[in-house]
Amino acid sequence: MPRIAYFGPQGTFTEQAASAFAREDDELVPVETVPLAFAAVRSGATDFCCVPVENSVEGAVPATMDALVRDEPLVAVAEHVLPVHFSVLVRPGTAEIRTVASHPHALAQVREWLAAHLPDATPIATTSTAAAAVAVLNGDFDAAVSAPVAVTHYPLSEYATEVADVRDARTRFLLLRRPGALPEPTGADRTSVVVTTPNRVGVLAELLTELALRGINLTGLESRPTKGKLGEYRFYIDLEGHVAEPQVGDALAALHRHSREIRFLGSYPKADHEPAPMSNAEFTAATDWVDGVRKGERG
Amino acid sequence: MPRIAYFGPQGTFTEQAASAFAREDDELVPVETVPLAFAAVRSGATDFCCVPVENSVEGAVPATMDALVRDEPLVAVAEHVLPVHFSVLVRPGTAEIRTVASHPHALAQVREWLAAHLPDATPIATTSTAAAAVAVLNGDFDAAVSAPVAVTHYPLSEYATEVADVRDARTRFLLLRRPGALPEPTGADRTSVVVTTPNRVGVLAELLTELALRGINLTGLESRPTKGKLGEYRFYIDLEGHVAEPQVGDALAALHRHSREIRFLGSYPKADHEPAPMSNAEFTAATDWVDGVRKGERG
Repeated sequence: MPRIAYFGPQGTFTEQAASAFAREDDELVPVETVPLAFAAVRSGATDFCCVPVENSVEGAVPATMDALVRDEPLVAVAEHVLPVHFSVLVRPGTAEIRTVASHPHALAQVREWLAAHLPDATPIATTSTAAAAVAVLNGDFDAAVSAPVAVTHYPLSEYATEVADVRDARTRFLLLRRPGALPEPTGADRTSVVVTTPNRVGVLAELLTELALRGINLTGLESRPTKGKLGEYRFYIDLEGHVAEPQVGDALAALHRHSREIRFLGSYPKADHEPAPMSNAEFTAATDWVDGVRKGERG
Repeated sequence: MPRIAYFGPQGTFTEQAASAFAREDDELVPVETVPLAFAAVRSGATDFCCVPVENSVEGAVPATMDALVRDEPLVAVAEHVLPVHFSVLVRPGTAEIRTVASHPHALAQVREWLAAHLPDATPIATTSTAAAAVAVLNGDFDAAVSAPVAVTHYPLSEYATEVADVRDARTRFLLLRRPGALPEPTGADRTSVVVTTPNRVGVLAELLTELALRGINLTGLESRPTKGKLGEYRFYIDLEGHVAEPQVGDALAALHRHSREIRFLGSYPKADHEPAPMSNAEFTAATDWVDGVRKGERG
């Protein structure tokens, strides 16, 4: 029975994403921090971990970015995208809401809604959106701003659902495991790598030109200074395509030549399933021609 | 007497940055939102505005990014960088701290400190770090996690100073005004532009290559999808150098050729005053040579 460690507790957005990744018999194991989720997989305690990688409600993304480059590599095999909207949960029969609790980032994302709908309630900060639901259950506070999944874990009522100040916010999650057989290419895949480069003029332009020259579309780029090494930068690069495709493999080899360190973070189906425009045929024809020339079969 | 509008209220990190920008007789004018700070300058109500542009404690950065591209252009003439650490303020004589208030983002940034030093205090979310100080002054809560400057405005005591879970966090602020004479080049300047491009493979590589080919160092890059226009991207680019320098001007002209829209956001002294490596002499020699050839004076 495969086990999935996730950045918990139960009832958070990350648990909601982990449930979306899970098959029928998978066991979901909440752990307290993102590094512990990675450690569970590295030690073999679990088979997978589920962590937020972009715009996390509970602010775990920097921890994920750090964990992705430290210790033994883990590799993403799937991604999941959740809309960032909340349910406001109360104890059944609650008449008046004087306090409303949640993770600070969640409170920041529903400030306008609270001002309009619960202007007299005092906002209380908790360590997670799920901890707020537990505190409401315990009678500490009147309402919790929670992930929609929280209501399935706690005997609370939905005072409001789909609560969000910004309509189109999203959080992206990855399902990671130890390196092994890769997911099959689907024609709508994403590949993620993290590259450490020397800090000299033009190094990022070189990396991106290697992708552009091969017709590879960039879907995400994040730069972070490396800790402790002044003037060295780390780039997290998401691109369309699968490393099993000729031009993506060739592009990653080119990135390897330009970088001090490169780590493969996975090739996995895109959550939106939108086909990536690729020209494998042209690329294969070109390398076949060079092979033919080398063998003396072609001119 | 020059007037500086800032994203207030009084006693926030942005006020602290505005004070750093201000000369002796300048008047600081708190306004409620980032768009109102921009509007004050556009209408002539104030001469300048001060807004956070990177890693704001109070979460205003998306509003700044949007305001920079909307309506009439404003231009940055200075930047200021503040370390993100907090003072915990209490009413003089406070014996017990049962509640601690602040902006949600600030509470998220001192969570470990609170767990270690005030484990039994309930964290309360307020609309700004300064609003927390005011609420403590009013007796609503026991302690406020505030910008260091707040203690100069309110008769509160410092229970703790330099409070931060992460030691090296920084917030960057810009001082903006209507377009006019630019600050003189200092040899250690930054230039900011925002570029809107069509979404096709390689467009970012082209932009960055134009900078690299001219020996211009990139210091910041942020991409955001444009609202309402599917598949169009907007890049906020910070680079070293001043538009008055030949190769920076030439690079901006090249960016203009590659973009649907380009907006100049300013050339201003870098807060760290670290000299930018520039080779104006070579660049000037090259354009002088072309001028000579065109005039029939050189071969």
